Amino acid sequence: MEEQIDLVGKAFADHYYHLFDNDRPALSSLYKPSSMLTFESHKIQGVEDITAKLTSLPFDQCRHVISTIDSQPSFSGGIVVFISGSLQLPGEEHHLRFSQMFHLIPMLEGNFYVQNDIFRLNYG
Amino acid sequence: MEEQIDLVGKAFADHYYHLFDNDRPALSSLYKPSSMLTFESHKIQGVEDITAKLTSLPFDQCRHVISTIDSQPSFSGGIVVFISGSLQLPGEEHHLRFSQMFHLIPMLEGNFYVQNDIFRLNYG
Repeated sequence: MEEQIDLVGKAFADHYYHLFDNDRPALSSLYKPSSMLTFESHKIQGVEDITAKLTSLPFDQCRHVISTIDSQPSFSGGIVVFISGSLQLPGEEHHLRFSQMFHLIPMLEGNFYVQNDIFRLNYG
Repeated sequence: MEEQIDLVGKAFADHYYHLFDNDRPALSSLYKPSSMLTFESHKIQGVEDITAKLTSLPFDQCRHVISTIDSQPSFSGGIVVFISGSLQLPGEEHHLRFSQMFHLIPMLEGNFYVQNDIFRLNYG
């Protein structure tokens, strides 16, 4: 069971950052109207507003490199996933370290959607 | 509602790190048998094992300084709290940056306990 949770968390993280780096508007498929995103303290709710935020960030191209993925089962069959990594922007010598957490909720079809999403750059 | 969530998240974080820095064994009061802790990729479950882990870390004294607290309501009345900050150890010149997430679940009395706890030092 524990291994299964780790596999789901890893598959989600790979899928999420692949979409982010290659087809950012398609991230909308991972959210629902109830979904919440806190991006660098900015609070956003719902598929449209979250997608608008993610696609209007001040960089077009980026690459996420994952350092760690920690997953745990949550109540009601969900999964919490905690990721650390770095964000590489074109022309930037230094990578930006980030941490991000997701609370994934199962859907009927066996997939998960993102109910909670909190993103922070790591300064210092 | 949103403000209330932020207040609960902040009150929890202040309480948690105050206990951690001043009376670490008392952290056991915040966990239940179902609680899960992932500490630097080490997975632990249950009040006794979590308390044993937290009280056997290789430092006796420490001070957590909180940089950011982000809170969101989760399903079933819970709250997800995402914290970044630094950990100061005696005699260490450099602070250790960390990120930590909690999934808090309400109890009948109006308090919350920690169902999910994931801690990571931020390297890089």
